[in-house]
This record gives sequence, C-alpha cells and structure tokens, in this order.
Amino acid sequence: MLENYVKVGDNVLIYFTNKKKWLVKVSTDAKFHTHLGYIELSSIIGKEYGASIKTSSGERLWILKPTIIDLICKAERKTQIVYPKDLGMIAAITGISSGSIVVEAGTGSGALTTFLANLVKPNGHVFSYEIRPEFIEIAKRNIDRAGLSDFVTIKLADAKKGFNEKNVDAVIIDLGDPWTLVREAWIALKGGGFIASISPTMNQVEKFVTELINTGFVNIESLELLLRNLEARTGMTRPSFRMVGHTAYLTFARKVFPERVERLNPIS
Amino acid sequence: MLENYVKVGDNVLIYFTNKKKWLVKVSTDAKFHTHLGYIELSSIIGKEYGASIKTSSGERLWILKPTIIDLICKAERKTQIVYPKDLGMIAAITGISSGSIVVEAGTGSGALTTFLANLVKPNGHVFSYEIRPEFIEIAKRNIDRAGLSDFVTIKLADAKKGFNEKNVDAVIIDLGDPWTLVREAWIALKGGGFIASISPTMNQVEKFVTELINTGFVNIESLELLLRNLEARTGMTRPSFRMVGHTAYLTFARKVFPERVERLNPIS
Amino acid sequence: MLENYVKVGDNVLIYFTNKKKWLVKVSTDAKFHTHLGYIELSSIIGKEYGASIKTSSGERLWILKPTIIDLICKAERKTQIVYPKDLGMIAAITGISSGSIVVEAGTGSGALTTFLANLVKPNGHVFSYEIRPEFIEIAKRNIDRAGLSDFVTIKLADAKKGFNEKNVDAVIIDLGDPWTLVREAWIALKGGGFIASISPTMNQVEKFVTELINTGFVNIESLELLLRNLEARTGMTRPSFRMVGHTAYLTFARKVFPERVERLNPIS
Amino acid sequence: MLENYVKVGDNVLIYFTNKKKWLVKVSTDAKFHTHLGYIELSSIIGKEYGASIKTSSGERLWILKPTIIDLICKAERKTQIVYPKDLGMIAAITGISSGSIVVEAGTGSGALTTFLANLVKPNGHVFSYEIRPEFIEIAKRNIDRAGLSDFVTIKLADAKKGFNEKNVDAVIIDLGDPWTLVREAWIALKGGGFIASISPTMNQVEKFVTELINTGFVNIESLELLLRNLEARTGMTRPSFRMVGHTAYLTFARKVFPERVERLNPIS
Repeated sequence: MLENYVKVGDNVLIYFTNKKKWLVKVSTDAKFHTHLGYIELSSIIGKEYGASIKTSSGERLWILKPTIIDLICKAERKTQIVYPKDLGMIAAITGISSGSIVVEAGTGSGALTTFLANLVKPNGHVFSYEIRPEFIEIAKRNIDRAGLSDFVTIKLADAKKGFNEKNVDAVIIDLGDPWTLVREAWIALKGGGFIASISPTMNQVEKFVTELINTGFVNIESLELLLRNLEARTGMTRPSFRMVGHTAYLTFARKVFPERVERLNPIS
Repeated sequence: MLENYVKVGDNVLIYFTNKKKWLVKVSTDAKFHTHLGYIELSSIIGKEYGASIKTSSGERLWILKPTIIDLICKAERKTQIVYPKDLGMIAAITGISSGSIVVEAGTGSGALTTFLANLVKPNGHVFSYEIRPEFIEIAKRNIDRAGLSDFVTIKLADAKKGFNEKNVDAVIIDLGDPWTLVREAWIALKGGGFIASISPTMNQVEKFVTELINTGFVNIESLELLLRNLEARTGMTRPSFRMVGHTAYLTFARKVFPERVERLNPIS
Repeated sequence: MLENYVKVGDNVLIYFTNKKKWLVKVSTDAKFHTHLGYIELSSIIGKEYGASIKTSSGERLWILKPTIIDLICKAERKTQIVYPKDLGMIAAITGISSGSIVVEAGTGSGALTTFLANLVKPNGHVFSYEIRPEFIEIAKRNIDRAGLSDFVTIKLADAKKGFNEKNVDAVIIDLGDPWTLVREAWIALKGGGFIASISPTMNQVEKFVTELINTGFVNIESLELLLRNLEARTGMTRPSFRMVGHTAYLTFARKVFPERVERLNPIS
Repeated sequence: MLENYVKVGDNVLIYFTNKKKWLVKVSTDAKFHTHLGYIELSSIIGKEYGASIKTSSGERLWILKPTIIDLICKAERKTQIVYPKDLGMIAAITGISSGSIVVEAGTGSGALTTFLANLVKPNGHVFSYEIRPEFIEIAKRNIDRAGLSDFVTIKLADAKKGFNEKNVDAVIIDLGDPWTLVREAWIALKGGGFIASISPTMNQVEKFVTELINTGFVNIESLELLLRNLEARTGMTRPSFRMVGHTAYLTFARKVFPERVERLNPIS
C-alpha cells in the first residue's frame, strides 16, 4: 500500500468538481495555482490518495491518483480525442487484455495507444505506426507520463506499406482512410484476429465495410454509442440537458481464410 | 502460434452470421447439428482458427476462437446479462487492468466476473460475493470454461455484512439495492478507489447517489449508453431499424477521506 | 356533444391495452371477436365515447373515438408507415395548418396524406401524386374512412414531370429518389415555401441536400428523431427495453429566389 | 398571392444561416443592424418573400415569412421553451387540429399556446390558465404578434381550482406538479379526450402516471424524443457533434368512465 501515498514526481489528479480537475506533477518547490486559490505542492507529499487539501482561499481539493482516462483526457494533444465509451467498446468487443499483441495505425497523440498499452501490460505489446514525426514526439511524452513506455513501440512508417508484425491479435485503425489498410491488416492478423476502425463519417464506414467484405473478414459490425448522463437528485432526477451528439462510428470484423472469394453478408 | 490451431477440448465459436453462431466444445466423436446441416467435430481438429468447414448441406461455417464476450453471451445463465457496451465502459472509467484487485457484489451467473477476471489477469484478482449457492455453481462453470478460474474467488457470503478484502482498487455492485453496500464498499476500497454500480431504474440511481454523497465519495457520475448499429451498404447506408432501448444506468464514484461530513455536489 | 356518442357506421377504437386495440366499424347485426371473447356491436350504439363494455368472457374493453394516428396506424397499407414522431415534426417545422395548400409526392397508402389533410382542413387542400393506380385505390379508401376526402385530390401522374399547382405552401416528398423532384418542387412552391423529404438512408439525404443547395433553397436542415418510452411505475421507473432504432431522416428547406447561382452553406 | 409580398408592419424573418436569423418588424424609417452590416427596412417593402437583400457590407440576407416555430423561438420569454419536436408530437398524438377545443394549464410565455392556437384555427379555441399576471402580459404580446389572438382566451386563474370549460378535446399541462390537476382535467374532458403533460424529471412522470391510473385514464404513454441533426455533405456525411441531451418527457392518456375504480396497467 505504500504506492497509495503521494511521492515526489507523481502525476496526481487535483479534483474539485467533475468539470474542474487538473493533472499536476508533484515537486518539492512549486505552487499550483487555480481560480480557487493556490496550494503548495510540497504539502501533499506523503498524503494518502483520497485525502484533501485546502487552498489558500480555503477551498477543499481532493488528491486522486489519475486513472488511465484522466491521463488520456489531460494529455498533450493536437488530434481529436477518442472518447472513453469508444475505448471501452474496443476493449470489450476485441477482448484485448494482458498478453495481447496489437498493431495500431495512426498514433496521433497516443491516446488510444495509451489505453491499449494499459490493457496489454505486462505481457503484451502495442506496435503503433505514424508518419508524422512531430506527433511521435507528443505521443511518446504522453505514454511515458502514463508509465507505459515499456509496452509500446512507435514506428515512423507508413502503415499503407504494410506492417512488420505477423499473427497479431488485433489491428486498430484511427485514420481517415481505413479502407486503404484492410489488405495489410489482413496479412498482419492471425486467423480470427480483429480489425477495428474509428471513423466519424458514414461514407468512411461504407467504404471500409465494402473492403472488409471483399478481403476476407466476417462478423462485421458497425455501431455508434450515445452517452447520456443522468443527473440523480432526490425527487428531481432527469437526463442531462447537454450531450455529445456524435463522436465516431466503430467497425469491427474478424479475419478468416476464404478458400474462394465470395460475398459475405455483413448484415443479415 | 500452435495455440491458434483447434485442439480437442477447445471451446470454439462456429460462425455463420452475426445472428447465427454457436459455442461448441470440440471432441473426437460427436456431430454438431444446425438447421444448416451437421459437421463432424473431429474434422475441425488441427484446423487453423479462421478456417471454414462445410456442413453436410454444403453451407460454409467459420471456425473462430471465442472472445471473452462470446463466452459471456453464450454462457449458461439465469440472470440478466450485462451488455458489452456497459462492460467496456466499466473497464474504461475504472481503469481496471492487469494487476487490479477487484471486489464484486452479486456474482449471478458470473458474466461480469468473467469480464473482470480477463482484465485483471495474470497478476490481479476478483473476489466475488454471492448468497445463492445455486448461482455460484453456474458462475464457476462459466468462469472455468473461459479459463479464468485462477483469477477469481467466489464467496458464499452476504456482501451487506462487509467485505474481507481491504485496500482494493474497485468495488463493482450488480445488485438491486446498491445503496445498502455503500458503507461497506467505502471500507474495502483504497483511497481514490472506484465504486461502480449497474442499475436498470432511475430510482435505484437516485438512492445510490444520495448514499454516495453522504458516505465520502467524489467524482460521482451516472450515465447510460445507447448502442445503435449502422448497416453499411454501398449507396444505402442507414442505422439499424432495431435497437435495444435500455439496459442499465452505470454509476461511478471514487472514495475520499472526508475530514468532516459535508455535502459534495455530484453534478456541477 | 351529440357527436360524442357512438352511431351506426362510426369507426370506433376498441381499446384493451396499448398493444391490443382494434379499429371496428359499428353495425347493427355483427359480433366483434377477440381472444378476450366477443361483443355485440349493436350493444355499443348510443354509448358515450369513453365508456366500457364487457366481452362474453367478462373482459372490459373501452370504446374510444379513433385519433388521426389510430386511423393511420390501423389503415390498410402496402407501404412503410410514417411514424407519429416524424409526422408531428413535419407539422411543427413547416407550420402546415388550416388553410395550407400542400403538394405530396408519393401517395402510397395515404398515411401521410391523411395526416396532412387533417392539418389543412377545412380551408386548405392536399394534392397528392402517385403513379401506381393500385395504391391510389387503397389511399382513397383510407382517406375516406378518416372522413377527409374533401380535402384531398389524388392524381395519377408522375411527379417527376412537374406539379400543376403553383404558389403552394409546402411540397412533401416520400419517395426513394427525392433529389429528382427538387427542381419541380421549387417551381411549385411560393417564395419561402417548404420542401420536406422523408428518407431512410444517409445516401439519399446526401444527394437531396446537394440538389437543394444547387437549386435555390436555404434553411436546409436534416435530422432524425429517436423515440424512447419511459415506463413509469412507483419506485421502478426506467426507459423501455425495446425501442425502434431508426425510421427515417427528415430534411427541410425553404425556397428562395437566388439572383445568381451561388453556394449556400447548408450546415453552418 | 398578394399576401406573399412584404408589407409595412409585417414581422419578417431575416435569414443568414441556420444559426443567424432575426425576427424584425418592417417599418418605413428604420435601419436593421447586424454584425454583417445594416439594411434599410423600407427597402424590403414590396419584395416577394424568398427574395434577398444585400447589407451595407455586401452580405446577402434572405427575407422569409416566419413560421409558427420561428415566432415561438424568437418570442419574448421568461420561461423554458417547449421544443418543436415536443410540440409536433403533441399535435400528432392528440390529433388537435382545426376546430379542437383545448385547455392549457400554465400559459407561461405563450409558446405552447401559440402553437396550439395555430392548430385549432379558425374554428377551435384554446383556453389557457395562468396565475402570474406578468406572464399573461408577455404571452398576450407573443400571441398577438403571431396573429392568433382570436383563437386564445387567457385566464388569470388557478387551474388547480378547476376549469370552467367542459367536454373539451384535450387538456395540456405545462406545470411542475401536473399530478395535482389530473382530477380537474378529467372533469373538463369529454369521454376519450386527451390529457398531456410536459415534465423534465422522471419523478414528475412517476407521480403523474400514478394519478392518471387512479383517476380514470387509459392508453397512458410516457416518452421522450431525442433529436439529432445529420450534417449531409458529399462524401463526409455524419451526425452533428452537438446535440441537446434532454428537453422533457411527454405523457399522454385518454379519459374513460370507469364504472368501478380498478387498476389500469399503464405499461403492458
């Protein structure tokens, strides 16, 4: 349980409300300033996670260990985030877990990479492809901050030219033209392995599914998840008035070995 | 890669369409009958996962390794299933992963238990409480079939009387009166640890959230996920006409140490 | 108030539950049979609407005057129904009401026609185009049963060849290729008049909106409505588990006179 | 068609985009200022609706006749608006149309009143109850601007003390405690007439439905509508990222004459 106490160098989540929370690195000689007053970071060293501290203005803040989602949501980024609901669905459908070997196309800022690495640790690995060097630097910093660098290899390479890995459990595509990678994903996957793609538009899904059918995938499923909060208060419980209307469609399929090319109905 | 070939004793998924698929245990001397004709199970031994086989009627079936969701959906059960979207959200929000120590209240048929065990393996553990002996037998068979028995301890005990485990990462409640367990969950959790509950009605959420606020939890969030399939076909793409309207509300919160009891706003 | 009593020849709604209700024409000498026993139709003549009657098996049934939606939902039909939520949205957005002149393309079984006629009565009119004579017969019977024949003119003619009406308030399209009618609708509409279309797929919406932009429409909006029932029971209130996932997208726009052709942004 | 030309005193909708539009009263000697430059209102007199005008900065604005929804959305108000989707659903389910006699409890700013008046004109009437004089003034101005004053009577009276009207077609309740009006609504309604209520929380629906069951209503249905826009652009069509998560639950039921009080199941 010693790890449940704040140490110098920890990234801690300073929590005020669900909307107001900050990810802060603990040092011995810095103040952390908010609109609620400041705190001396040295004063939280040695505290148990779950404890609180008062700001200079007397507001109570809570010291929490950041979850993997906190780390992702507070990460440095230049790209669209992948939402927790979509990350969770990828985990559930593909079954990616400790020991899995996963290939990712499109590292971006490393949000999905971080999530996948946390699932496959300590015995699996994520190989992530990215062609923009500047994103690789950001992603590496984010993954490192989450303490997951040992489980990730980022490659400066064009996924369209093929993956070096073979017999992998899953290939996850977070790029705008996922249909261009279907053949290469098929080659990299083990039999029955999963391809998954994250796409905001229906036209992308349409093209991707067509390519999956033609290449040798079954169990094709496209879906979207709508998340709505419930505001529970005694005698006045109702859904939240605000809601995100759309993030992305998720498409999943599993590699098979078709002895002859034939049409595999993705829907019936 | 030898594990990607079918062996005697394997539980394999025989796939025809997204709606027609079966979980079958491979033996040397049995036929598997479907409305599409039968197959000799001995004939698939040694095949690579992802290969196909023709039935006696000439229909092609695909041999897939069941995912954790396939195992859960095809499990023996007497209880309401927890849906993949909800399982995935629990994984994403709580960050439960390899090494986590999780307590579950309400083993039921072991569906959630199985999912959690797959996440925490190989270094974590799930302790699951159930007061109905007949459910424990079903759950054990299901968890065993998924190959996850080493990571689960099922206890014939009333969770309302308290959990033996301390400093756990998460307590997951799948019972009809989750508010009765909030105090015991608080005691079992480490600081910052997650409580999560799965409830079909708003009234349950209302009572549970009230208890969370009064006991010492922050970052309280209740939500529901609506899953809708997209039927992608060239030039005719549209959402599915059929959809599940509701499964359950999920509520999450994190344990803190309130120095004095005070109202913690769950919403703002 | 004499009209609130059952007369011979009335079409009455026999109500048992929300799922079990029947539209029946009252005569002096017939029995109405259900799985709950039968009733003598003569016995309800002279009853006030809202009264009940017992079947031969002692079950209580309620006598209600059918609403316009009851008439539509119980109508004879060979086509996909338009759902109440979508009908209501068309009424709300276009403001079609007493006195409006409306053109409909695609009479089908007359469901939408019936709804529109009920809105425009007693001073407006619906002109509905249909090329399949067998549908016109069905639609006429349905509209007649709703008592709205005076407010509808059905034409056996191809809407693609143009509408005879000019300066109309709205053109409503319920056909598979709505983009082929945009130019003709523009000609028929008064300045500021509404075009509306009902389409199940996104590809249809995409083509229709493109044509709207190019032809001279503004205030273009495409949307879908998801209806979910709430099952309200003391202490156990929750959304319904069953739900229709999709019916159709609705697209609305208003005619303008572009002095020069220019791109009108449909979204921002 | 003379009415399709702009006259002095008309309330016109000046349209720029779906998000930027203004309701303006036309006079002979005023300028209308926007961030896109100004226009001389005198210059649009005599123009046909659907025409455009350039601002002083050269931006093109469109002159449209406001719809009933435009009038409602741009009305002066101090209360929560009722959304078009919900207004339309009330119209569709109750069948309120020309000639209907409707009672409204809770005039508020008159948005729902205006919508109902537009449906019942020219032969029906809306009787609306409000206890706050200051709201009555606002509502009267809004209804007058929509040109519907002849079809509305607003009463400064407490609906809880009963309605003067009898044998009405529908009673629509837009108050926070709709269950307190169920008995009075039952008395005012004709047999088979509709009661409808608009409530943001589930607790309100729960109490209201319980009272409906106990008082003598059948065909009870509670529902919510979720509206999502579709952004249709060639090759990039997707749902809108922004969406309203919740407005209100709608509950509908029909008056019957129970000979003896008995439990009527609202759900099965």
